[in-house]
Amino acid sequence: MSDVNANDLMSLCKRRGFIWPSFEIYGGVAGMYDYGPLGCSLRNNIVDVWRSIYKGREGFVEIDSETVNPREVFKASGHVDEFADLITYCKQCQAPFRADHLVKDFYENADVLTAKQLEEAFVEHGIKCPECGGELGPVEEFNLMFKTQIGPGSARVGYLRPETAQGIFVNFPNLYRYNREKMPLGVIQTGRSYRNEIAPRQGMIRMREFNQMEVELFVDPEDKDWPRFHEIENETLDLIPNTTCEPVTMTVKEAVEKGVIANRVLAYFVYTTKQLLTRVGIDPARLRFREHLQDEMAHYAADCWDAEVLLSYGWTEIVGIADRGCWDLSRHAEFSGADLTHFKRFDEPREMEVEKIRAKHKALGPTFKGKAKAIAAAMESLDPSAVRDGKLTVSVDGEDIELTDEYFEVAKVTEKVAGERVIPHVIEPSHGLDRIFYSVLEHAYSHDEKEDYTVLRLAPAVAPIKVGVFPLMEKDGLDDMARDIYAKVHSHRVEAYYDGSGTIGKRYARMDEVGTPWCITVDYDSLPGGAAEGTVTIRDRDTTEQKRIPVDRVAEIVDDLLAGKPFAEL
Amino acid sequence: MSDVNANDLMSLCKRRGFIWPSFEIYGGVAGMYDYGPLGCSLRNNIVDVWRSIYKGREGFVEIDSETVNPREVFKASGHVDEFADLITYCKQCQAPFRADHLVKDFYENADVLTAKQLEEAFVEHGIKCPECGGELGPVEEFNLMFKTQIGPGSARVGYLRPETAQGIFVNFPNLYRYNREKMPLGVIQTGRSYRNEIAPRQGMIRMREFNQMEVELFVDPEDKDWPRFHEIENETLDLIPNTTCEPVTMTVKEAVEKGVIANRVLAYFVYTTKQLLTRVGIDPARLRFREHLQDEMAHYAADCWDAEVLLSYGWTEIVGIADRGCWDLSRHAEFSGADLTHFKRFDEPREMEVEKIRAKHKALGPTFKGKAKAIAAAMESLDPSAVRDGKLTVSVDGEDIELTDEYFEVAKVTEKVAGERVIPHVIEPSHGLDRIFYSVLEHAYSHDEKEDYTVLRLAPAVAPIKVGVFPLMEKDGLDDMARDIYAKVHSHRVEAYYDGSGTIGKRYARMDEVGTPWCITVDYDSLPGGAAEGTVTIRDRDTTEQKRIPVDRVAEIVDDLLAGKPFAEL
Repeated sequence: MSDVNANDLMSLCKRRGFIWPSFEIYGGVAGMYDYGPLGCSLRNNIVDVWRSIYKGREGFVEIDSETVNPREVFKASGHVDEFADLITYCKQCQAPFRADHLVKDFYENADVLTAKQLEEAFVEHGIKCPECGGELGPVEEFNLMFKTQIGPGSARVGYLRPETAQGIFVNFPNLYRYNREKMPLGVIQTGRSYRNEIAPRQGMIRMREFNQMEVELFVDPEDKDWPRFHEIENETLDLIPNTTCEPVTMTVKEAVEKGVIANRVLAYFVYTTKQLLTRVGIDPARLRFREHLQDEMAHYAADCWDAEVLLSYGWTEIVGIADRGCWDLSRHAEFSGADLTHFKRFDEPREMEVEKIRAKHKALGPTFKGKAKAIAAAMESLDPSAVRDGKLTVSVDGEDIELTDEYFEVAKVTEKVAGERVIPHVIEPSHGLDRIFYSVLEHAYSHDEKEDYTVLRLAPAVAPIKVGVFPLMEKDGLDDMARDIYAKVHSHRVEAYYDGSGTIGKRYARMDEVGTPWCITVDYDSLPGGAAEGTVTIRDRDTTEQKRIPVDRVAEIVDDLLAGKPFAEL
Repeated sequence: MSDVNANDLMSLCKRRGFIWPSFEIYGGVAGMYDYGPLGCSLRNNIVDVWRSIYKGREGFVEIDSETVNPREVFKASGHVDEFADLITYCKQCQAPFRADHLVKDFYENADVLTAKQLEEAFVEHGIKCPECGGELGPVEEFNLMFKTQIGPGSARVGYLRPETAQGIFVNFPNLYRYNREKMPLGVIQTGRSYRNEIAPRQGMIRMREFNQMEVELFVDPEDKDWPRFHEIENETLDLIPNTTCEPVTMTVKEAVEKGVIANRVLAYFVYTTKQLLTRVGIDPARLRFREHLQDEMAHYAADCWDAEVLLSYGWTEIVGIADRGCWDLSRHAEFSGADLTHFKRFDEPREMEVEKIRAKHKALGPTFKGKAKAIAAAMESLDPSAVRDGKLTVSVDGEDIELTDEYFEVAKVTEKVAGERVIPHVIEPSHGLDRIFYSVLEHAYSHDEKEDYTVLRLAPAVAPIKVGVFPLMEKDGLDDMARDIYAKVHSHRVEAYYDGSGTIGKRYARMDEVGTPWCITVDYDSLPGGAAEGTVTIRDRDTTEQKRIPVDRVAEIVDDLLAGKPFAEL
């Protein structure tokens, strides 16, 4: 556990406008939070860092797809059948509970118990309704997707998406065309996803409406390298492999060579995740990557790692980085009938044994007479994958004709082929944006008990306000000068905050509490004829050091500081 | 009507990755579109311009609230009762129709007809089901909010928000505190809103899931001025006032002085809307502001203007700018019981006649005996607004006591008061982001029939790709040099596109078609020892003019161009 008090932090967040429980004037709704002015800026700044890495450095493309999806999408993805928690209702007061939460004191992994095992556990441990002491009802599945209807009448059933990823998968044909039919193809998306939690707890860690930043990288299944791998191969990662479950620190290169991480492209993006998280202000000493246990990993996944950070809630997953194999595209190809393959061109055409449909003319003639030739041609134009249960259906002169295998065979022939169709594999770094946001705040939070003084040591790149601008007094032209500086520095990307009220100490404290890295003060020396005419002081949040800088260079100096210039070198 | 062919434009959008009909591999869903890579960048760039004006120049704050809201919110806002279209189903094939659309050829404003009038119109004009010719059923209301349930069991009814605005209104107490209890208070929000259309048509103009950029400016009801008004008072607007319904061009100042626009703050934001729209590339000659007719305007609105642009669909509303009076906060105050007022401090305390509750001790004594004194004190501590139906309820020693007016009176007394509580008025510029996006594309679209050549003349600020980078041939080091330039220029904010395939003419054409303002080509002269060693050509989209520029200044030159430097001055 970290020693940050989550209640103190959430109360600061609420008081200062980072995060507000939603619909408070109507009594609130559990698991829902609104981003206030400072929170919205901080969150957007985190998204910006993510974009600079994936869209900027890696050149991936960004899309934005719909949040309401028709049922077919989530039938294919498996969410209609499997995205559920086990629920039980009190027979007396009808309160709903997550069944596994009721027995978590008795089992190490209560969430793997079946409905039947949970019902037995209630009996064995004498579990009653925590609200009223009543008897608990049967344990059943509760699907966690918000359900709705699209359009009127015999409407289509729709769901709010439980992840942004599916919007990328179902657009694969469009994206593949956009990328001029080349692999690799990297796609990112950020936006809302939804999970209709039974009984949300843990603040921003488990929200019913949450924000994701997902990355879906489609790669050739036979090429799991990455061009920039060598740039980071000697960097280190703190890993917990599922073979030993012991923490180990090794280089990215070692992790791949020792088989700890399945392949180079996955390892590259595990490290990229570390880069992203530390850039937005996660403490590397409270960050580790844990490999999914075999029974925790999806059956189709080649390998899967969670970025976990140490919070007051304990070690918490905030990003998942998985090699999902061909699962996602295979499922959507199967359920939609669409071609979701990549045509992998060989360097030069190859002689290959391929399967072809051959018509049996001797059998066709007697049965189909004059149509036999047309039927044979239609059959031979089909791919062997069109054979279902030993039968083929062809359409001739507008008529559908079903043929059993007495009329055709699937033969192996040798042909020159230009390439082959493969289903791309998916490497998926999936980021829980609200969790990252909250973790950044916990890791930045620093409270001096003795002085009762709070500083949020936010990285300048993500700090919502970059500069506080104060006149020493709100008079004698100090205020005009300060307002001029504010107007010159403030933009929608470099936010400034003008504050003229209270003592300077109070104003510094207010800015420290919301993580503003620098404050600028106009004093009497700054004024024309003053001892330091045309200069103002700038104060560094983390050292509280102050320097005088020329007033006409303030905007430029703030840009330099944001670009990484050390305060000491001003 | 504009002469752009909407089908040609949408087909370009689809082919080049601006916009894709959603869920195409599953047959699609009407009224839903996904933003592809170029569309997502273009849309985000429009949001960025909006932020630069409202968050940057005006210093408004941005929040982000939840999209699923409990019923209470929309009961107060009126959407539960009034956000509906009239629907009829075919009795034979059950197809649903918007009733007014079926009779639109017979009435100028079919959308104002009542259900009964529509049913009569079906009979009078012999309207049958357009699908199967069957008889139409009764006309009824269809609420356009997507409905869902929050949580399990006796769940709360929830709706997907039909506008982002309510998330700002319900957060008023938080926002007011954030703004240190001062007026004006400007708040912006961008995000998804939802409208479960009966039968969506008109492409991106009417989407079931759409994007808004809303601005809610809370102002003192008695101060409808704006500090920057003088900066723009002499600029002109093309207006259609509801008094004459005739187009007229006048300055912003005239519009206010002649009473055409209700007040200065509203007029300022009408003009701000013009600034925003022309900056993102709307043709000012195809932009006008139309005042709502008296029967079109919400009863509570003081004044309301639509920004309309000329599209292939005709004049289309893309932004609404309204003075909504105290309506929104009054309704939420009424339904939630929360205090949503602003305490307006007087410059100095004023002697004012105020209403006070006075206990009638003579009546209280005999009835309440020993408790009379406590009851009197409790009553007098209440505000006269606590009197309901002539009765007051006070709580004494944990007991609620209801008192008729035989026990109290409301008296007028003169007091020194520091200020008064007022319900702020709301000025609301509400932007349909998808409509703006689509309008920008139509106004940028230019197709030369003879040459069959398309150029999107997008403003550089919003163009998704800022620079195309080409090697003349993909060999001899030209490609390496071009890739170097790409790497130097490309970022998530200044997107570049490397293209090495096809003739240079084809590559220019590809970039012109997606609105890329500049292309850079590396040729043999660029190479070491070449005739123009260390330089590359840069081509301007709109003039097709070309210049040679030093390769080591490319990134800087692109920044200059983006900042507005004319190509001719390079």
